[in-house]
This record gives sequence, structure tokens and C-alpha cells, in this order.
Amino acid sequence: MTNKDARTPASMQNATSENAVSENAMDETAVDETALIGNANTVRGNAVEGNNAETRKSIGWHKGYIEGVRADLRVPVRQVHLTNGQSVTLYDTSGPYTDPHVETDVRRGLSPLRESWIIARGDTEEYAGRPVRPEDDGIKHTSPRGGLRNLDAVFPGRPRLPRRGRDGKAVTQLAYARQGEITPEMEFVAIRENVSPEVVREEIAAGRAVLPANVNHPEIEPMIIGKRFLVKVNANIGNSAVTSSIEEEVEKMTWATRWGADTVMDLSTGRNIHTTREWVLRNSPVPIGTVPLYQALEKVDGRAEELTWEIYKDTVVEQAEQGVDYMTVHAGVRLPYVPLTANRKTGIVSRGGSIMAAWCLAHHKESFLYENFEELCEILAAYDVTYSLGDGLRPGSIADANDAAQFAELRTLGELNTVAKRFNVQTMIEGPGHVPMHKIKENIDLQQEICDEAPFYTLGPLTTDVAPAYDHITSGIGAAMIAWWGTAMLCYVTPKEHLGLPNRDDVKTGVITYKIAAHAADLAKGHPGAQEWDDALSDARFEFRWEDQFNLALDPDTAREFHDETLPAEPAKTAHFCSMCGPKFCSMKISQSITERFGGGAAEGASADEIAEGMLEKSKEFAASGNRVYLPLAD
Amino acid sequence: MTNKDARTPASMQNATSENAVSENAMDETAVDETALIGNANTVRGNAVEGNNAETRKSIGWHKGYIEGVRADLRVPVRQVHLTNGQSVTLYDTSGPYTDPHVETDVRRGLSPLRESWIIARGDTEEYAGRPVRPEDDGIKHTSPRGGLRNLDAVFPGRPRLPRRGRDGKAVTQLAYARQGEITPEMEFVAIRENVSPEVVREEIAAGRAVLPANVNHPEIEPMIIGKRFLVKVNANIGNSAVTSSIEEEVEKMTWATRWGADTVMDLSTGRNIHTTREWVLRNSPVPIGTVPLYQALEKVDGRAEELTWEIYKDTVVEQAEQGVDYMTVHAGVRLPYVPLTANRKTGIVSRGGSIMAAWCLAHHKESFLYENFEELCEILAAYDVTYSLGDGLRPGSIADANDAAQFAELRTLGELNTVAKRFNVQTMIEGPGHVPMHKIKENIDLQQEICDEAPFYTLGPLTTDVAPAYDHITSGIGAAMIAWWGTAMLCYVTPKEHLGLPNRDDVKTGVITYKIAAHAADLAKGHPGAQEWDDALSDARFEFRWEDQFNLALDPDTAREFHDETLPAEPAKTAHFCSMCGPKFCSMKISQSITERFGGGAAEGASADEIAEGMLEKSKEFAASGNRVYLPLAD
Repeated sequence: MTNKDARTPASMQNATSENAVSENAMDETAVDETALIGNANTVRGNAVEGNNAETRKSIGWHKGYIEGVRADLRVPVRQVHLTNGQSVTLYDTSGPYTDPHVETDVRRGLSPLRESWIIARGDTEEYAGRPVRPEDDGIKHTSPRGGLRNLDAVFPGRPRLPRRGRDGKAVTQLAYARQGEITPEMEFVAIRENVSPEVVREEIAAGRAVLPANVNHPEIEPMIIGKRFLVKVNANIGNSAVTSSIEEEVEKMTWATRWGADTVMDLSTGRNIHTTREWVLRNSPVPIGTVPLYQALEKVDGRAEELTWEIYKDTVVEQAEQGVDYMTVHAGVRLPYVPLTANRKTGIVSRGGSIMAAWCLAHHKESFLYENFEELCEILAAYDVTYSLGDGLRPGSIADANDAAQFAELRTLGELNTVAKRFNVQTMIEGPGHVPMHKIKENIDLQQEICDEAPFYTLGPLTTDVAPAYDHITSGIGAAMIAWWGTAMLCYVTPKEHLGLPNRDDVKTGVITYKIAAHAADLAKGHPGAQEWDDALSDARFEFRWEDQFNLALDPDTAREFHDETLPAEPAKTAHFCSMCGPKFCSMKISQSITERFGGGAAEGASADEIAEGMLEKSKEFAASGNRVYLPLAD
Repeated sequence: MTNKDARTPASMQNATSENAVSENAMDETAVDETALIGNANTVRGNAVEGNNAETRKSIGWHKGYIEGVRADLRVPVRQVHLTNGQSVTLYDTSGPYTDPHVETDVRRGLSPLRESWIIARGDTEEYAGRPVRPEDDGIKHTSPRGGLRNLDAVFPGRPRLPRRGRDGKAVTQLAYARQGEITPEMEFVAIRENVSPEVVREEIAAGRAVLPANVNHPEIEPMIIGKRFLVKVNANIGNSAVTSSIEEEVEKMTWATRWGADTVMDLSTGRNIHTTREWVLRNSPVPIGTVPLYQALEKVDGRAEELTWEIYKDTVVEQAEQGVDYMTVHAGVRLPYVPLTANRKTGIVSRGGSIMAAWCLAHHKESFLYENFEELCEILAAYDVTYSLGDGLRPGSIADANDAAQFAELRTLGELNTVAKRFNVQTMIEGPGHVPMHKIKENIDLQQEICDEAPFYTLGPLTTDVAPAYDHITSGIGAAMIAWWGTAMLCYVTPKEHLGLPNRDDVKTGVITYKIAAHAADLAKGHPGAQEWDDALSDARFEFRWEDQFNLALDPDTAREFHDETLPAEPAKTAHFCSMCGPKFCSMKISQSITERFGGGAAEGASADEIAEGMLEKSKEFAASGNRVYLPLAD
């Protein structure tokens, strides 16, 4: 592959077969670096073929890699091969699972890609770590639900010691960025986003972007969250006391990333919470987020008033040692704000928020998370765990949107953001919730102002309350809008929101809906190159290249299936019409002939007279060609 | 029912059981008219019970009616009965099919509700009408596909003569409104929208709203389309040469209106086009729209160049006599604009647009629709057919949005709108299409300016091209936004868009998605009372009234089904927790106790000290109550 891919935008790179998908792509070298965005002076664009031509042809796409300056820096991409010989490169979150050359085994976990980079920095140390206890998995001697630990469930992969910053040093990407250092992780995301590494460093240093990458989660393919980059999508998984198993959660994680989830939050509660997380982390190519408060509450058997800073801190350390990349911390739910929720339509709908509110009520004390926030910063800095400052008082209904409680908490999150930055902890801010369209912009504008442009990470927002079973859609509307206006990551909502736990299909529907919202926002923000993906698909549509339409679609399987419902036969996939209009009526077909008649560019800048003259000539041509609006089926 | 329902907003009326759902509601009289919006001085609010208490209880809702000043003016509503004794009144489009007291038979058609109103006006006459010909159903002696007409398919309902304005008089709601007359149709929609009849008349007279109601379609329940009213949704049905049958199309129509479609467009092509339309019209409680050009093209066997004004006009008369309420007319696709599409990514994607472009090319003449527009106005005025001026040059891809061709046509539509108004023809303007979010507002702003605020009627717009199989979502995002900004009616898009013909499930998904977009826009526009529906559902959610949540949902069936997947047992529908969090973790439950502790209004306006004092007291209460965050299952 030539340098073309290093220059074209990250969201989608469109190249001809000559320079992008040739079999000897590895032998070529990137040369034209001057065209790179920013001041990049490194070579960042060698494509590596992931599988052979035969396989690629049969599946329509293959897993490819773009190499960076170092041999161990290979950025995964999805290379779509079009029937016209061109190819399109798409951002890929699916990890090694979609590379037929990589053998994966969920019992061993993924290869620790980043380990050598972390060790090479020389600022971390391995240590014995906190011993895993039965209660970490919700098992208690005193619990009526007690019993023996299910040893089969323990993750069987390679033994490892946890790692942390030496002498309490902040080993965060923020610290490095502020020191002017471009890490391999930054290099990786620069290729992935097709910007210069310096842009990545600047955005992280300014706190406008985060690169969640715990030193104990070396398996991830680095990604970045910030308004200057592609809008990201998070998918939630997690068992609950009522249903689901470890295997299901690991499967949901790989499934979600296959469809495009950029991060995954493990929101498990109940039994096997530690072990489930271990399996998820060791097998995840994307950053994993958690809400430590859920597990801490399990440790006190669900009694919020028995929570202590010590139990919480111990849980944070436990999870940081496992490799959790970002943690939702509801430190903004302060004692004085709780009464502000009393007159709400739906009170406090955040689980973490309601737990902290109950604790504050029970003790009549300020939140222990708020009071101990600086100590928490020190812990997170030592592992490079990113803060996701939770919006525990987010509105749970249209009626409660943008109210005093919500914005009081937001102002506190702004204050905590400043503290976190002082400790070099990367920080993003969580946002609502349920918000009608006309009140959405105020949320992002206020958050950006109060939180010094720290990345906003919103759940939807849902734009109406009246459509349970369709809240992926009620929220997808709000998500697209708020992302256009600057939200950096969107937390997905599935059709089961408010009703039950998402199954496999729900996870896919949620991710696809949110990828639509994210991409629509990339387009509206004018993200360089975002539109090339749309253009490639629209070209394929106009030219009746059905297979290319399917392969370029966010969900090729469903697009193909829907088409085949009406016109299943193979010839229909190349026929110059489609099932909506039938052969006689196809507007695409009619319009193609117009394009052919006028030729590209003929009409541009022409005067009315010139156009009229051209029209006359073309009308004669039209008549000469048989005057047919449509081409017969045999055509 | 008391006057309460006459005052509360039309989108949703929330009342207690005492005054809204009492069995003797018919005996009560509306008295407080002063509170009505506008200068209404008529009684407009008697509820009539549609079925008995037992039935209502078992299904959770019943079909009700609000009576107007005249006995034959009964506005249908969906009355939802909550388990707390309250009831909620929702706008209802489903027609007599959901009233167990009305016997319907698709072979006889619906009762002609408006017939007496039309006759009473005395300005129309019955006449012999145009004889139906075999070619109206696409049957030709010369056609290789020819054969005998399928007589079984002919609509067997009551014989009728068509009706039209005497001496070419404009018998349109616009003409009446301009004369200061409030028709029963206006009265009907005033109750439906809960505004004064005078507001309805003013909006129609100003051309800011249309009330599509052909004098030959007396079966409809009148509805209004305008930015001051609730946002409306259109569902397209229609067979094509490739698939589907008459029965399927009638079924799709009743199915679409059951889920909330406000109008239905019959876009049939191919065989049985006249007969299919007859069945649909005679059974439709909502206005029916068509694109006459499709049928006209069938009559010339698909050869666009053989189309003539005479054939087109004949088709319009044929359809007007049947009762089509609004017609898409692509009169804005003018000869000089065709070359402007030559360099587009996806050319002309409107079927009507491409047919007219091909005709212009073939003849090198100005469009016969543009040239004969005034004569067309005279025809439409005589039946009160509403114009839907088609956007034949709408963009079919993100790349083509807001281009020269699109806006050139829009300016012509503005010009035609002025002409139509001169002939007293009600007019709305169609809009795109594929438009990225940041270019949507320009569309509605320009349309409103150019077209004197005539109602905008948009297809989506789709905010990205990359998600075939999910274009109900890519377009639902754009639809919600453009409706917020002033679009009056949204044409739905189903998951099959670009891929095939929608089936029953697709129609439902499309309608529900667009009802979400429309309601989200009603909320954002601050439509009076729109939020009461959300509030009622959120109240039910917060109070764990699961059955009420289901019954209030846009799609009760799916909401219930999703809930039952995780927690099917009957007790789970009243349990004070849900399957997302399980019994221990429920934030709604925790938050409820906060509300109880603070009491409604306690925190409002309190000083910090007062709050602190209250907190201390409340914290003691909390401790006294057992300090439990959650209530045990048995609670």
C-alpha cells in the first residue's frame, strides 16, 4: 500500500486496487508525509494483508493492518473489497477475533500487545497485589446464598502479577502528554484516527481527550475519546442477580465489539463479579469500564449505609489491578443535592447515584467519595485508570431534564475534573439521560464550559418517555444531536432499556443504532473523510452494485437478508433495478441515463443558452437511443 | 366527562376517574368554555363511552369519543385506564376498527361519516363520472401480460356516483376558511387537536395548514397538517410489479393506522392499480395520498415519452372521483433543472422526478405539469384534492444534499404554491431525502420562506447513507429534528428502504419510529400538553405500575413481551423492582424512599440551613425505618 492510506481520513479510506489491496503491499513504503495533518514526521502507513485474495473475495472484506514506525504497532482496519476493483478501509473495533491468522482462545485470553511498551517506559513495577477473596465474587460465610466458589469459573489464563506506577508515580497518558511525550499508544490512535500523533498528544495534554489504557490491561488496541476525534460508542454488558452467566457476558463483549463498540462497560452485580470481569478483561480488545460502587455494595450485602471509604477503595484497587480502564465514580452526588431530587417526577434513576444518596441520608454526612476524592486520584494515577465522573443525578424522565439537581452535580463534576487533572488522572464526564430535543444543547454547552472541555460521555439522551421497547431509537435521536454538538462518546441504549436485560440481538441493535448516531454526528461535524464512506455506499447504490452495498453497510448480514426476502435470486443482486420499483420504474436506472447523456461536468457553469443548446442535442441522442425510460430486464 | 377534556391538550388528556371515565359521562355537560384556547364559544367536549367497564379493564384501554356541537360529530380517542384509577386520553388514528361496537366489513367499506356535511353545504353535485376502463387497472389488449380482468377483485361495496363542485366551484376547506366559514371538518380537528375551531380556520385560511378531505372520500375522520398542530406521520403502502396483492395493501393500511399513521399514501404500480385504490379508499379512516404519475405511466406501458397532459389529466380525474385526498405532483421538475443533476452522486432518486426528467429530455420541452398547472388547479379545487408538491429532485445521498438542483426546484414549488392558493387549492410541499444533520435546518427555513409557510412534508431526512436495513433509524433522527424546526408531516421510512418492499412488521416498525420522531418534536416545540403523556408513563415507571407502563407505551405489545422475556411471572409486573437491577439494586425503589422522606415540596425554596436541619431529622427517620436501601422481595 502506498502512502495514500496514511493521508486519507481514518474513518474511511478509499483507494483503488492498485495501491491499496495489492498482494505485495508490504513491500511498499510510505513516502509522502508532508500531507499529514499536523506536524507528523514519522512514517505511519504500511498496510499489511491479513488474509489471502481468495478468502477476501469470498467474504467481501478482510482484516487488514496499517503499520506504524515500530514493527509491533499494527493498527487494525476492515478492508472492504468492491466489485469495481476499488477498496474501502473502515475503522475496526473487532479485535483479533476477525483475523483468521490469529488463533484466539477465551480460556487463554488475548495477546498482551502493549506489555512491552509499558515495561519499556520503566516507570511501573510488578508487585504481589491484593489477594482475591471469596467476597470479591459475592461469596460470604454469613450469606444465606453462600456456598463454595465455582472453581471452574476461575480464569485459567497465564498467571500474572499486577503492575503500578513506582513510588506512587502517575503513569497516565495525560502525564506523558503533558511532558511532551508521544507514547506508542498515542502513535497507535493517530494512525487509527488519521491525524498526526502531535494532535493526539495535544488533545490529551489539554484534557480534551482521554486514552483509557490501564497498565494492567495490555491486551487493548488503543483508542481515543475526544470531540476532535471520531465519535465513540460504549456498550454495556453485565450479569445481574436475576439472569445471565460469565460465558454470556464474554460473548456479549466480543459480539458488541464485532459490531463496532469502542469500549465496553461491565456492569455486573451479584455473584462471580470478580471472575466475570477477569474473563472479560483478558479477552477484550477494547477498554473496559466499570462502576466499582456496584461491587462495593455487594461486599456489604446491599446495605448502602454500611459502605465505607475503605471498602470502596479496596474495590477500586482490586479492579485497577485487574486492568479496568475507566471507572464511573459518582462523587458529584453531594449531601446538599439529595433534597433537590425530592420533587422530581422520577427521583434518582442512576443506581450509583441512588446508592450514594441513600448513604448520605443514612449518615447525614457528605459523600465519602467526594471527601476522599484526592486519595482516589492517587490510586487511579498509579494504574492509569481514567475517571468517568458519573452523573448520579441525571434526569430519568422528560419532566426532570436540566433541573437544579442535575446542574448542581454538573458544577461539582467540573470542580472534581480540576482536582483529577492536578493528579494527572485522565477524566471524562458523564451526561444524561432523558432530555427533550430543545434542552439537549444546553447540556453539552454547559458541560464543556464547566469542565474545561473534558470529553462528554452521554447516555442517549432519550428524547421522549413514551416508547419503551424502542428506547434505542428515542435515545439514538438525542445521541446523534448531542454528538454533533460535541459529545465524544455515546453510551448505547438497547431496545430492552427499562424492561429487561439485553440479549444478543438487543446488544447488536443497540450498537448499530449508536454507530448510526455516531457516524451521523461525524458527518455533521465535518469530520475529515467521514463522508467518503457514505459516498462509497451511494456510488454502489447508484450503480446497482448490490454486493458492494451489503459489504459497505454497517450491518451487511441484515441488509443482504432484507434484500433477499423480496428478490432472493442471485441475478437480482446484479440486476439494474430493485424490488421497490420493479424493472420498469426504477428511478436510479432512469437517472443513470441522464448522467450518461450529460456526461460528468457538462452542466457545470453553463449558461442557460448553452444548457438549452446542449439539451436539444441530448434530446436527439435520447430519441436515437430508442426513447426508453427503462431498460428491459434482459439488458 | 366534564369540560376538563375540552381544555386539556389534544395529544393527551389526563383526568381522574371521577370526571373522565365515569359510566354516566354522557349525561354531563361541558360548562367552562372560557378556558378554551382562542375564541371558541361552542361546547366541544362530551365523552362517550365506547365499551363497557369490564372490557376496558381487561384490555387496559378502550375506544372513546368526544362529542362536538352536533350529534354526528364524534372525535375518536384512545382512553387508557390506569391501575391507580386515573385515565389518559390519547390521539387515535385507528378508525372504527378498534371500536368493538362498530361492525366493519372490508367488502362494504366504512360508513360515510362526512357525507351529510358535504351534501349540506349544497355546493357539490353528483354526476355520471368517468367510466372505469380496463387500462385503469393496467389491462391492455395489446399487452403481452394482458388477460381478463379479475372480477373478484372489484370492490363490491355500495354503488356511488362521484361528486364535484357545481360549475367548477372550489369546494375546498381553504375556500371555506377564507370565507370565514368553520366547517364540521374544522370543528372535528379542533376537538382532536384541542384548539379552538377559529385557530383551525385561521391556519387553513393562511395556507399554513391543510385539511385533506376529498368530497369523494366521506369515510375519513378529519385531521389537519400544519406546524401549529401535532406533527403527523404518513405511511406508504402500495403493491409493485414484483410482489404483493390487493388484500395485503388494505391490510397494510389498517395496520399502519392502528399504530398511528395519520395519512396513508397508496404508491401502487403495475396491475389492479385502480381497484386496489378503491378498496383502500373505501376502508380508510385517514386521508389517502397518491402519485397520479405512476398510474399515468402504466397507461402508456412505461414509456415516459408517450405521456401526455391528457393522459395525466384523465388519471387525476379518475383518482379524484374515487376520493384521493392529496396528490403528489412533480410540477417543479423543470427542463432547465435536469442538467443540474448530471454531476450528482445519485442523480434523481424520486420516481416521479425521474419520469418527468426523462419526458423533458425526450421532448426537449418544458414539463407538461408545469405548463398546465393552472388547469390542474381547477380540477383539484372541484374535488378538494390537496396538492403535495413533489420534490422530484430531492437528494438521494448525503453528497447531493442542498444542491443547486434541489433548491432550484424548491423555488419553483414556491411559485406553484402561490398559483395553487389563487385557485383555492390546499397545498403542502414535499421535502428531502438524504441530508446530514448540519444541513437540515436550511431546508425547513428556506421552504418556509419560499413557500409562505405552507406545510412542509418530508421524507426523513436520512442523516447517513451507510446503514441500509436501519434507514428507519437514520431517517428517524433527521425527521425528529426537522419536525422540531417546523415540518408538519413526516413520511415514514421502513427498515426495508433501499432493499425491498416492507412487510407487516416493517410497516409497524416504520410507523412506531416515526411516531417517536413526531412526539419528540411535539415535546421540543412545547406543544401544549404533549409532555403529559411522557409524565403519565414516567409516573407509572417510578411507581412500578408495569401494566400502566405497557398500556401507555406507543407499542404496548412489544413492551410487555420484552419485559416478560426476563421476568415473565405475573407478580413481576407489580414487584417493586425490575429485571435490569434485581431486587437489591433498584434505583427507582431507593429513590422512592427519598421522595417519601422529603415529602413533596419540602426542599423547595429552603435555605441551606433549613435543608441541613431537615436532613438531620430525615436521617434519623431513615435510621428508625431500619436503614435498608432496598425493600426485601416480600415487601
